[in-house]
Amino acid sequence: MKIVIIGGVAGGASAAARARRLSDDAEIIVLERGPHPSFANCGLPYYVGGEIQSRDKLLVAPIEMLRQRHRLDVRVHAEVIAIDRPAKQVTVRDLASDRQYTESYDKLIVSTGAAPFRPHIPGIDSDRVLELRDLNDADRMHTVATSGSRKAVIVGAGFIGIEVAENLRRRNIDVTIVELADQILPPWDHEMMIPIQDHVRENGVELCLQDSAIGFDETETGLNIRLQSGATIAADFAVVCIGVRPESKLAMDAGIACGPRGGIVTSERMQTNDPDIYAVGDVAEVMDFVTRQPVQIPLAGPANRQGRIAADHIFGRPSAYRGTQGTAIVGVFGKTAAMTGQSEKLLRRSETLYEKIYIHPTDHAGYYPGAEVMTLKLLFDPNTGHILGAQGVGTHGVDKRIDVIATAIQGGMTVFDLEEVELCYAPQYGHAKDAVNMAGFVASGVVRGDQTVVHATSDPSAPPVYVLDVRSESEFTAGHIPDATNIPIEVLRDRTDELPRDRKIIAYCKVGQRGYLATRVLMQRGFDVSNLSGGYLSWRRTAEASSTT
Amino acid sequence: MKIVIIGGVAGGASAAARARRLSDDAEIIVLERGPHPSFANCGLPYYVGGEIQSRDKLLVAPIEMLRQRHRLDVRVHAEVIAIDRPAKQVTVRDLASDRQYTESYDKLIVSTGAAPFRPHIPGIDSDRVLELRDLNDADRMHTVATSGSRKAVIVGAGFIGIEVAENLRRRNIDVTIVELADQILPPWDHEMMIPIQDHVRENGVELCLQDSAIGFDETETGLNIRLQSGATIAADFAVVCIGVRPESKLAMDAGIACGPRGGIVTSERMQTNDPDIYAVGDVAEVMDFVTRQPVQIPLAGPANRQGRIAADHIFGRPSAYRGTQGTAIVGVFGKTAAMTGQSEKLLRRSETLYEKIYIHPTDHAGYYPGAEVMTLKLLFDPNTGHILGAQGVGTHGVDKRIDVIATAIQGGMTVFDLEEVELCYAPQYGHAKDAVNMAGFVASGVVRGDQTVVHATSDPSAPPVYVLDVRSESEFTAGHIPDATNIPIEVLRDRTDELPRDRKIIAYCKVGQRGYLATRVLMQRGFDVSNLSGGYLSWRRTAEASSTT
Ligand SMILES: Cc1cc2nc3c(=O)[nH]c(=O)nc-3n(C[C@H](O)[C@H](O)[C@H](O)COP(=O)(O)OP(=O)(O)OC[C@H]3O[C@@H](n4cnc5c(N)ncnc54)[C@H](O)[C@@H]3O)c2cc1C
Ligand SMILES: Cc1cc2nc3c(=O)[nH]c(=O)nc-3n(C[C@H](O)[C@H](O)[C@H](O)COP(=O)(O)OP(=O)(O)OC[C@H]3O[C@@H](n4cnc5c(N)ncnc54)[C@H](O)[C@@H]3O)c2cc1C
Ligand SMILES: CC(C)(COP(=O)(O)OP(=O)(O)OC[C@H]1O[C@@H](n2cnc3c(N)ncnc32)[C@H](O)[C@@H]1OP(=O)(O)O)[C@@H](O)C(=O)NCCC(=O)NCCS
Ligand SMILES: CC(C)(COP(=O)(O)OP(=O)(O)OC[C@H]1O[C@@H](n2cnc3c(N)ncnc32)[C@H](O)[C@@H]1OP(=O)(O)O)[C@@H](O)C(=O)NCCC(=O)NCCS
Repeated sequence: MKIVIIGGVAGGASAAARARRLSDDAEIIVLERGPHPSFANCGLPYYVGGEIQSRDKLLVAPIEMLRQRHRLDVRVHAEVIAIDRPAKQVTVRDLASDRQYTESYDKLIVSTGAAPFRPHIPGIDSDRVLELRDLNDADRMHTVATSGSRKAVIVGAGFIGIEVAENLRRRNIDVTIVELADQILPPWDHEMMIPIQDHVRENGVELCLQDSAIGFDETETGLNIRLQSGATIAADFAVVCIGVRPESKLAMDAGIACGPRGGIVTSERMQTNDPDIYAVGDVAEVMDFVTRQPVQIPLAGPANRQGRIAADHIFGRPSAYRGTQGTAIVGVFGKTAAMTGQSEKLLRRSETLYEKIYIHPTDHAGYYPGAEVMTLKLLFDPNTGHILGAQGVGTHGVDKRIDVIATAIQGGMTVFDLEEVELCYAPQYGHAKDAVNMAGFVASGVVRGDQTVVHATSDPSAPPVYVLDVRSESEFTAGHIPDATNIPIEVLRDRTDELPRDRKIIAYCKVGQRGYLATRVLMQRGFDVSNLSGGYLSWRRTAEASSTT
Repeated sequence: MKIVIIGGVAGGASAAARARRLSDDAEIIVLERGPHPSFANCGLPYYVGGEIQSRDKLLVAPIEMLRQRHRLDVRVHAEVIAIDRPAKQVTVRDLASDRQYTESYDKLIVSTGAAPFRPHIPGIDSDRVLELRDLNDADRMHTVATSGSRKAVIVGAGFIGIEVAENLRRRNIDVTIVELADQILPPWDHEMMIPIQDHVRENGVELCLQDSAIGFDETETGLNIRLQSGATIAADFAVVCIGVRPESKLAMDAGIACGPRGGIVTSERMQTNDPDIYAVGDVAEVMDFVTRQPVQIPLAGPANRQGRIAADHIFGRPSAYRGTQGTAIVGVFGKTAAMTGQSEKLLRRSETLYEKIYIHPTDHAGYYPGAEVMTLKLLFDPNTGHILGAQGVGTHGVDKRIDVIATAIQGGMTVFDLEEVELCYAPQYGHAKDAVNMAGFVASGVVRGDQTVVHATSDPSAPPVYVLDVRSESEFTAGHIPDATNIPIEVLRDRTDELPRDRKIIAYCKVGQRGYLATRVLMQRGFDVSNLSGGYLSWRRTAEASSTT
């Protein structure tokens, strides 16, 4: 068996290593265009910022190790320039010698990844416009960041843009981010990003949302970045991080089927339309775990696991890829945003029936020092309670809750199952009713009809409602929803005659818990009442989200 | 509907609050013997140590809140002294006035918890022998710990004993722990505790394992604690934390069925043999989630959820308790030990077929600063791959991995599912192949027969094996298993003629990963080979575990 692998990093190296373990006598050739196989793409921003000090650390599996330990024929500076499917061979250009040669294969694995998208903007080819994909890019940015630069403009507020911003701030460089969307980190839902955006600004990053770069003009000492809005920002350099595009041209040219966004179409075995050719990682189009629709989600975990599955299948194993869930996380100046499964915006786009709830629990018991509030949003099927997605933002413990929910999604579990999961509890780690249980309780209550919830974004053309604030007087005085009436939960039962019977009542408190109790009290007395999910905290964010961008 | 609840803390208060939400006109009476309902038992040790400074913080739901917000008739200093089932009433003693009265019920919930076990040891009733269950105990210990005490002996190294030890050290008190078992934290497996024990000792706690207190003799200024081993330790005070016993006498006296260890037998609806009487929390015997056998596991999460389920059932809801998994966690001087499901010792005791693997991953990517090694042990069915239990010890991220695996157990998932869970990855949070995936890979490989594993504890009467160390020469020189032969993995393939074909080969490396590769290489060449799971690191711990106690 002779296996040729194009691309020697996350997907490719994983496929190669797994293939070697499955067959010690297979011939396995890894062709990598760059100078190093198997490096830590995900560490690049932190190397730029100096958090990772030694560049060597980024070489996860040095080439000698892959050669000696795994007996892989790893060739660097080796670019595949053509796939000849009838002849089952690839054409390789040795970039060091500029020599060309062919290499035959029994099985071919394409793991060429995805390249930063560079739109045709005047001036984008300037040396002062950087991008960040590989070690070369990182070296360049490292040099620029440590040689007196004072100001950078980052185009694109996806997770790489945000990580680059944080790391340039670490180098004391002023940073402005320009983002076309009306929020940073577009995979997350808008309102979840409000506190994160505030935090980014507090850390000295200027955000220009709903704007875009339309020109890069080199000046004598730097770069002027012209924006759609008419503004011009002077900077030492710019970084373009507006997403990636699958490097599938090679495959396309060879007649391998690609999807509408350029990803190579794959089966659950990671096979392309040519059964001897596999595609894995960022270059592949796969199924979405939740929707079973084709997606392209560039993430390292899926790339690694897909590589492993392709190797398995080559050696006759029945491993199958279950689809990508889109579990993602990003650190933002000490805070964390994480998500798994479908976002609300995706559910809307696909017109999927869903309901959602928000909670604002602390990461661990409030009575133990250091507890900090996080926000969790859970998206679920309102009929069956199946979990569709979750998002979290906060300081500590967000990764844990999203990982637990991600696992529940994998297990096909429902919000009723989240009620019952038995998680670690001691006061410095969680709650007797963990945040995940709590999300399960609240969502299950909604599915069971124990409470209906409304959201700050609910239809404004709905008939006039009576807004009931059940917090304390002092909380109410400090700020409340316009036209709300304050009746604290403690006295609500004695004052129900003040409430209308001919109108819908929306009850709210700070986070939704007292609002829920009020909802229960009033429902049982025959009122038409709903709870504002996430309470005043969520309302304020949504209000901010629609007023500011 | 009139509901009476005995005990107003974790299980009782949760049942009461849930019952109120389900029915705003039910009469709900909570009878609590102590001075406060709804306090944070789990915070008590940290209040003693000063980590939690304000005692008020421990009052999770103050009595006024339960009365006003939840309209609960909460009575403190109210001890139930008898249950009259035919009359459906309880007898209450008001400890403040010493008055007695009866209270009728439609439904009764017993949530009396479990009391510290106090064996008949001479002198145990001394004022200098403390225990820690409630606020009174905590107040007493707080006073003793902050009024010049220099030395304490803790009898029992369960999680409360360990937490008390840590907190007394925080007060600069010398601590010796006396424990009958040959390890601390007996629910965990022995070898997992080796690094934790070292850490406890490094933090100035003396451990006397396999020993017990047989007498407490008051002296003029303190206490002499006499041990089984013959030693005597002089101290200012002692704390007895050798487990708890369900407070089920009340129920037993009323003819409510109890199990052999004293817990009230309950159905999945939390009903006792009297359908109008429920038992929840530490006083209840429930099913073990994994084994479906009766157990008594005193934990706050289960108590809270059981209370909620009892309330549900009273109001006709089909909620059912799924059994307790035993997910537990304890912080030990900055390190963490966590577990879920069955331990190996329990599996042995029940003669359940199981296999296990060990891995020693870092909590996040090794190339990002601050990564620390943890140890994970996964127990699973060797035929089906069903997850039976997991344990973890380390510094960071242990809670997350155990929570994920706990969720997988709830979902009935297998080690094959752990291979595919899609978890959050950015370098400061995890790995592209998370520790949980890695545990899944390794265990799946074992189930699939890609490697057989052996353990340091394997049958010593097995025929003589050839022990193969595949680490580097320098690693080998620094320490190795007796009689091992060193052939580094990098040259193994060229030196297979040095290996025996008539004997079993056990390959090992530092953590098991190169050993696994060696196993694959040799299996494919027809050798009879197994991998030492967890490698030299696990072997050394087991060796230490059997040599030291
Ligand atoms: C800065 C940065 C930060 C990231 N952070 C995270 C993170 O925190 N979490 C996360 O999950 N993901 C992160 N990612 C994404 C993650 O790195 C990718 O999803 C993953 O590396 C994809 O693996 P892959 O094998 O498909 O492609 P890659 O790892 O990109 O490897 C593809 C390789 O193929 C080579 N190649 C391409 N064409 C050819 C050819 N014709 N011939 C030979 N070789 C070729 C390329 O040189 C490249 O080295 C990050 C990415 C970047 C750039
Ligand atoms: C120091 C300490 C630390 C702990 N740490 C943790 C931890 O980190 N994680 C964890 O999961 N668990 C922990 N626990 C265990 C957890 O607190 C218990 O599992 C949980 O509180 C059990 O709830 P329960 O309602 O059954 O009993 P309890 O919370 O103990 O409540 C029972 C109540 O019933 C009252 N009562 C008893 N008999 C009568 C009667 N006849 N009449 C009236 N009232 C009566 C008692 O006064 C008591 O207040 C800890 C326990 C202690 C003591
Ligand atoms: C480094 C690289 C070549 C490793 O590939 P790999 O050997 O398949 O992966 P790992 O090193 O994670 O090891 C996993 C294997 O070791 C086994 N293993 C791990 N720990 C083990 C242990 N303690 N005992 C036994 N086996 C163990 C696993 O079972 C698995 O083998 P399997 O797939 O045959 O089941 C590849 O992942 C890579 O290039 N990574 C860097 C690039 C990258 O991922 N970039 C994006 C993120 S920054
Ligand atoms: C404080 C105590 C009385 C609370 O009981 P509780 O009200 O049932 O529990 P919580 O405060 O956790 O709230 C959970 C309820 O609020 C709802 N809720 C929580 N957050 C919400 C939100 N943001 N929006 C809407 N509803 C919310 C949940 O759905 C749940 O209601 P449900 O059971 O009807 O579904 C009880 O847990 C207790 O006494 N705890 C202290 C003692 C203890 O547990 N000790 C051991 C650990 S230290």
